[in-house]
Amino acid sequence: MKFLLTSNENFKDYFATLVNRSNGDMSAVMPAVSQILEDVRARGDEALFEQIEKFDRWKPDANSLKIGTDEMQKAYDGIDSCLRNALNLAFERIKSYHEKSLPKTWMEHDEHGVLLGAKYTPLDRAGLYIPGGKAAYPSSLLMNAVPALVAGVGEIAVCTPAVGGKVNTLLLAAMHICGIKEAYKVGGASAVAAMAYGTQTIKKTDVITGPGNIYVATAKKLVYGEVNIDMIAGPSEICVIADESADPRHIAVDLLSQAEHDEMASAVLITPNQAFGAAVQRHINEEIKTLARQPIAQVSIDKKGAIIVASDLDECVRLTNELAPEHLEIATNDAMELARQIRHAGAIFIGHFTPEAMGDYLAGPNHTLPTGGSARFYSPLGVENFMKRTSLISLNAKGISELGNACMKLADAEGLGAHKRSVAVRLEALK
Amino acid sequence: MKFLLTSNENFKDYFATLVNRSNGDMSAVMPAVSQILEDVRARGDEALFEQIEKFDRWKPDANSLKIGTDEMQKAYDGIDSCLRNALNLAFERIKSYHEKSLPKTWMEHDEHGVLLGAKYTPLDRAGLYIPGGKAAYPSSLLMNAVPALVAGVGEIAVCTPAVGGKVNTLLLAAMHICGIKEAYKVGGASAVAAMAYGTQTIKKTDVITGPGNIYVATAKKLVYGEVNIDMIAGPSEICVIADESADPRHIAVDLLSQAEHDEMASAVLITPNQAFGAAVQRHINEEIKTLARQPIAQVSIDKKGAIIVASDLDECVRLTNELAPEHLEIATNDAMELARQIRHAGAIFIGHFTPEAMGDYLAGPNHTLPTGGSARFYSPLGVENFMKRTSLISLNAKGISELGNACMKLADAEGLGAHKRSVAVRLEALK
Repeated sequence: MKFLLTSNENFKDYFATLVNRSNGDMSAVMPAVSQILEDVRARGDEALFEQIEKFDRWKPDANSLKIGTDEMQKAYDGIDSCLRNALNLAFERIKSYHEKSLPKTWMEHDEHGVLLGAKYTPLDRAGLYIPGGKAAYPSSLLMNAVPALVAGVGEIAVCTPAVGGKVNTLLLAAMHICGIKEAYKVGGASAVAAMAYGTQTIKKTDVITGPGNIYVATAKKLVYGEVNIDMIAGPSEICVIADESADPRHIAVDLLSQAEHDEMASAVLITPNQAFGAAVQRHINEEIKTLARQPIAQVSIDKKGAIIVASDLDECVRLTNELAPEHLEIATNDAMELARQIRHAGAIFIGHFTPEAMGDYLAGPNHTLPTGGSARFYSPLGVENFMKRTSLISLNAKGISELGNACMKLADAEGLGAHKRSVAVRLEALK
Repeated sequence: MKFLLTSNENFKDYFATLVNRSNGDMSAVMPAVSQILEDVRARGDEALFEQIEKFDRWKPDANSLKIGTDEMQKAYDGIDSCLRNALNLAFERIKSYHEKSLPKTWMEHDEHGVLLGAKYTPLDRAGLYIPGGKAAYPSSLLMNAVPALVAGVGEIAVCTPAVGGKVNTLLLAAMHICGIKEAYKVGGASAVAAMAYGTQTIKKTDVITGPGNIYVATAKKLVYGEVNIDMIAGPSEICVIADESADPRHIAVDLLSQAEHDEMASAVLITPNQAFGAAVQRHINEEIKTLARQPIAQVSIDKKGAIIVASDLDECVRLTNELAPEHLEIATNDAMELARQIRHAGAIFIGHFTPEAMGDYLAGPNHTLPTGGSARFYSPLGVENFMKRTSLISLNAKGISELGNACMKLADAEGLGAHKRSVAVRLEALK
């Protein structure tokens, strides 16, 4: 784990590598992913089944590809009741948060009697990609399905890889909670291809959302435009701004909660207090030993972990804005004031009682967040990923009489004669 | 121009080709575009200057690449005062419309004392691509710059190709109206590369918006993820639903106003009245002869134009929803009611006095709209393309006490021990 003062000679160069981190180099997997996409596009189910047999080691057909709602119900009924309650609580809280950002259709008349507006419509069909295997998380299903449900999407299709044909029980239970009617046992670039182009069994979708490895991310990038996607995401990351008002053990555990996700995950503390930074480092070394996922967390901490000692909180904020982290925790006494100064972060966890994990599961906001510095321009997953806007324009005779001449002037200047004439014929008819 | 009844035997097949139109096949230009991007990424200005010399036939340097604000002012002062007023009116109306959709930062406490919210921040830096040559339209500049200005973007950089080093006067005047401080004479994939990766002269941006040919569209797709983009757009298109309550000449001119844009543009009328359809076709044949851009419009009408006679207005609406057109005009007496039934369109022009041209210039809504059926999932360009959202979460002692156990249950179920412990250490500290 790096331990650096911003006054260190080599700090600038080191920090530049952090800022210029990317979401992963796709060039190595691009040819393989392109081939999978093209194959599914050309041969549909046939290609899909072959790919599943190869990657997930089971032999599907049109029937066994589908996950029955009875399986989901059975999984839900079978889990521990405390866990069932926790999943339901998460569902309700995520739903309630996302309902607050539902855009509203509006229409208004201006002073010329022109009716202007914007109409929001849910997408007809969404495809949710949910990873399988070790990273098959019910929380991913909730975080992708709930905004689609709140948006009012007509059809929601879930794809998740089923190694050996088996799907994680908790994932099935979460599907039941969300009322998923349509789910398929297919993963990776194959699933993205099926949702983007459609096959005999899986209908083409309008948007594909959800996390995934570099193959999934690359496939999403390649099909972008054919369908919409939420974002291109890379390894998960946390940045923590904390000072001596925080408990260094708490901050150490928070950093580890990111590191345990993935060997490529990154955890960075930025603190104005060197002694505090050193204490956090000690606690990391101690706490990491207790983790079931210690081998993963250790690689992440060693390769990507950093404690940066800044000259003051202002510098902490400035550096954080340069990083544009996916998750930002601010554990200082004036955390809310610092949060106001943050321009770039996926989500901000404010104050001493807000570990990132609360946001991962059930605070309410989405845990699908922009990584790799893309918080500079991407937003968290939300209802807007499952809706789109249509502009509304209606002029009456008064409106075109008052605005028509200016419009014709502009059309004329751009050399577009029929544009001009489309206004002129109406003005003539009004004479 | 096709003239078809929906009851015709071959209608289904023909309509399927319309529905499955795409935004253009990028595969042919992909290698050339990739090379331009890689070259600019690797060699910066040097590559950029070489490309400009090759494509635009003038020899730039770091200085002459920039367009001075004095040039913009001079152009503005030099144009006809009626035109100046029309441009200013357009600017004000577009601004006023876009201000209505500015998202608002919000924060609220829930029943557990948990503070939740969403913070909207303008992007730091936007890159606007504006085509040059014959398609150098001041309206494109207004429609891209105004939402960025309304969003509060800190830095706006415009790129536009300058064949022979010259920029269209009206474009310069529009830049002056928008208060553009930074503009460069570079176009095509080279401009997209410079805005996506940055060069010595042009700083990297966070989003690239604006129309362009297949090279520009392909470049935008390739850099997507590195920066954000507005959408991937293809040839422009209009669909008109009209019946005998409309003047067939007006509708003919409206269809031509799309056809005159581009030989690849498409104009489709869907009407429940065969005689009306025939009248529109006669007026097209007559009106097209009067157009300065007749040769372009003729190719578009011949190759892409269609008049479809449906059995009733319900069928017109159903077919339109399948098409998901960029522009939709509804010229019937119950136009507003039909507009309510439209699920997929970039913009809807409602009623007999609303030719599409009014929306192209100064009704207020953006004229950058999703094409090729992507209105199924894309929205018109808007302030949200120049802003992003950050989630806000803050728990106090009460919040984590009441919600912490459910969170730990979920973390445990997902096998993420440090996630669980990050909550546990705080609950312990509260004991």
